[in-house]
Amino acid sequence: MRWSKEHIISIKDFSREEIDFVLRKSAEMEKKLNSGRAFSLMQGKILANLFFEPSTRTRMSFETAMKRLGGKTTGFPFSEISSEAKGETIADTIRVVEGYADVVVIRHPVEGSARMASEYVSIPLINGGDGANQHPTQTLLDLYTIKKEFGKIDGLDITIVGDLKYGRTVHSLTNAIVNYDVGLNFISPQELRMPRHIIKDLEENRIPVKETSKMELGDSDVIYATRIQKERFPDMQEFERVRGAYVIDMETTKNLKKSAIIMHPLPRVGEIAPEVDSTKFARYFEQSRNGIPVRMALLCLVMGVNF
Amino acid sequence: MRWSKEHIISIKDFSREEIDFVLRKSAEMEKKLNSGRAFSLMQGKILANLFFEPSTRTRMSFETAMKRLGGKTTGFPFSEISSEAKGETIADTIRVVEGYADVVVIRHPVEGSARMASEYVSIPLINGGDGANQHPTQTLLDLYTIKKEFGKIDGLDITIVGDLKYGRTVHSLTNAIVNYDVGLNFISPQELRMPRHIIKDLEENRIPVKETSKMELGDSDVIYATRIQKERFPDMQEFERVRGAYVIDMETTKNLKKSAIIMHPLPRVGEIAPEVDSTKFARYFEQSRNGIPVRMALLCLVMGVNF
Amino acid sequence: MRWSKEHIISIKDFSREEIDFVLRKSAEMEKKLNSGRAFSLMQGKILANLFFEPSTRTRMSFETAMKRLGGKTTGFPFSEISSEAKGETIADTIRVVEGYADVVVIRHPVEGSARMASEYVSIPLINGGDGANQHPTQTLLDLYTIKKEFGKIDGLDITIVGDLKYGRTVHSLTNAIVNYDVGLNFISPQELRMPRHIIKDLEENRIPVKETSKMELGDSDVIYATRIQKERFPDMQEFERVRGAYVIDMETTKNLKKSAIIMHPLPRVGEIAPEVDSTKFARYFEQSRNGIPVRMALLCLVMGVNF
Repeated sequence: MRWSKEHIISIKDFSREEIDFVLRKSAEMEKKLNSGRAFSLMQGKILANLFFEPSTRTRMSFETAMKRLGGKTTGFPFSEISSEAKGETIADTIRVVEGYADVVVIRHPVEGSARMASEYVSIPLINGGDGANQHPTQTLLDLYTIKKEFGKIDGLDITIVGDLKYGRTVHSLTNAIVNYDVGLNFISPQELRMPRHIIKDLEENRIPVKETSKMELGDSDVIYATRIQKERFPDMQEFERVRGAYVIDMETTKNLKKSAIIMHPLPRVGEIAPEVDSTKFARYFEQSRNGIPVRMALLCLVMGVNF
Repeated sequence: MRWSKEHIISIKDFSREEIDFVLRKSAEMEKKLNSGRAFSLMQGKILANLFFEPSTRTRMSFETAMKRLGGKTTGFPFSEISSEAKGETIADTIRVVEGYADVVVIRHPVEGSARMASEYVSIPLINGGDGANQHPTQTLLDLYTIKKEFGKIDGLDITIVGDLKYGRTVHSLTNAIVNYDVGLNFISPQELRMPRHIIKDLEENRIPVKETSKMELGDSDVIYATRIQKERFPDMQEFERVRGAYVIDMETTKNLKKSAIIMHPLPRVGEIAPEVDSTKFARYFEQSRNGIPVRMALLCLVMGVNF
Repeated sequence: MRWSKEHIISIKDFSREEIDFVLRKSAEMEKKLNSGRAFSLMQGKILANLFFEPSTRTRMSFETAMKRLGGKTTGFPFSEISSEAKGETIADTIRVVEGYADVVVIRHPVEGSARMASEYVSIPLINGGDGANQHPTQTLLDLYTIKKEFGKIDGLDITIVGDLKYGRTVHSLTNAIVNYDVGLNFISPQELRMPRHIIKDLEENRIPVKETSKMELGDSDVIYATRIQKERFPDMQEFERVRGAYVIDMETTKNLKKSAIIMHPLPRVGEIAPEVDSTKFARYFEQSRNGIPVRMALLCLVMGVNF
């Protein structure tokens, strides 16, 4: 396959062939990474991290990916944006930044901001999360983790648990999964169900979908847990009750398939009990680590660097 | 010319010969930069960015310049200064930092702070802006942009529009321009006129100066627009009226000389309408980009690195 | 000696032989550093700086050390920790970060946090300060400064002045000094005396200790001054009185031994008068600078990099 994307804005822009290509190149990159040799693929190149909201791991993950490739990084953390600069349009900021860097990662609280920024910029741009909308590199590392574990994605039974209504990660993942032949289970409290337009989209793609508010995980190959955020609940007691009902603990793991894996985009705040970390099911720390080769591969692809 | 400055504190310290030398070396640097080859001129060297007030672009521009040269950067962003360290004198901070780095860029809200710091330090120091006082590297990139466009500075008609009273950038630029044979027009609201001591200085240097509050740009080769800051006005209605009167829009551009260019130190907040960006007059994004080769050249000059 | 520590958590974990080994390796490193050659010992390696409280110099010192070695750094400054991430346990954070980096420095306000974090991590970890508890690399650079000056530590008369009750630096230093044959003088206001358990520890190790509230420095080879923090005093007048009594000024230096040195962990806020900086006694800026070779040596030791 010849790579043709200059920007990575939304996982919806990816065909199955393109996703598979990224996963294959990520696997090649991980092999090189594990060999321990220092890379010089990005020597002399600079990545600008533009983070318009606080973030630690996405920023660090991209920074690490670029540095492992032999490149350098610049950028501004959220807290350093001067009040003048805060009044500036994204269009202006991005055109200034393209004078400094060779590739840019942008995270911005407004939906659509990454797409808009990409229209003004002449260097490759990667969406590091735009509001409740998209987080395509997270989705690619999620799929990479599944593929790495099972050797395939087709044929798996995938369960997503938690806040399905507001979770950016979960929406992006679902957008991607329509490309595969999987079974999907959505487990959430009634008030945090998956948006209807996504369900409709899945039905049109003939993905079998089950929705429930009960924690039934016995048939799942992949259990993908997500945070339930306090700020979604007007009533704290209600929040505590709901959160408690979707915790994955040692009791929960007793009913899992032997080969099942538990994933989480992290940070978790109580959704998975710490005791589960040492079980054979836990993959969330490895999942986070998989972000490095996936982002290294993506940086090379958008910049036209062969590896 | 032999370069003799260890520090870059104020554009007033520069003779015309020295400014011209910097512009010439910056042009050489830009040529090397455009060749796309990775530099190793600063290999193993560290630049410390000491920013005592929030800033994004000046910091990123110096960081990029150092990294493009093959060097590394360290420093503290404003928000990370611990309360203890905030009680420390600049003299102490700078002597600690010289133990970490090979060259230092300092931005500080107090006028004269850069000069003071330079008296304590045994490594080269560059002023990245001291209060309302000086911002010499901005001025050098401004002049570089003009020279690059017209091949010369002498003989040009230069108009500066906006807040001429408080604008650090504008004062530095005027300080430098006395070295050239130009015509100067200052356009501003009455309450934001250029300080009298600067006008006097220009008259002593026999620079023809016109001051007005009307937007007459028809004779100008260079239009340099600046922000009018809200906080200068006790009355918001008055601010809106004043700001509106000095906006450069498509209508304004109709009366410009065909060869005229519009500059702005950025960020802009409404002073230039976005439609102007795609006209042949707009040079503000290129101006920002010119900061990289200029700062690369300056870093090499103060550190005695030949190129 | 063969180095066996994977983590550097507390100076109490160090035998005299290990401390001496670090000081010897630091001296070798400083020699290499002064040769001016760029290092490539850490090429392709990444240090993660995890700072859960604001800090400028410890962070910059580690960053510089890593970069001087040819390595790269990542990390999060305190102000960038997202609210979600703030709810995360250190155990989770550290396991995510070990996926990004090859070595980690952690500063955290909670005592024991560094030790706890080290139990979850499979890459080397260095404590950059945990609350009022330990700051082992500061202690090693303090000892390095003394050894560099006198060629030895045994036989010296060492005086520590200021806040001995709450000072992390001073407690760590005292923990280390029990390994040497020195005389110790503690000078402090009555309310800020050294904790009894430390005095007891010294007595058990047969270190001669004098405690006083009078500034008698005539017999001291090393005077180690520390900050007296305002927030320890309910009454501001009392604070001013106490602080004033322990200032080292030109008058104080008249009574010092000719060969005495004055040290301070910095930042100082009035404990040493600026006039003292230019006397032959002042070593505090050099002390700070010594942090670079010491931390370079420690990074190499924990990562098993020969030099």
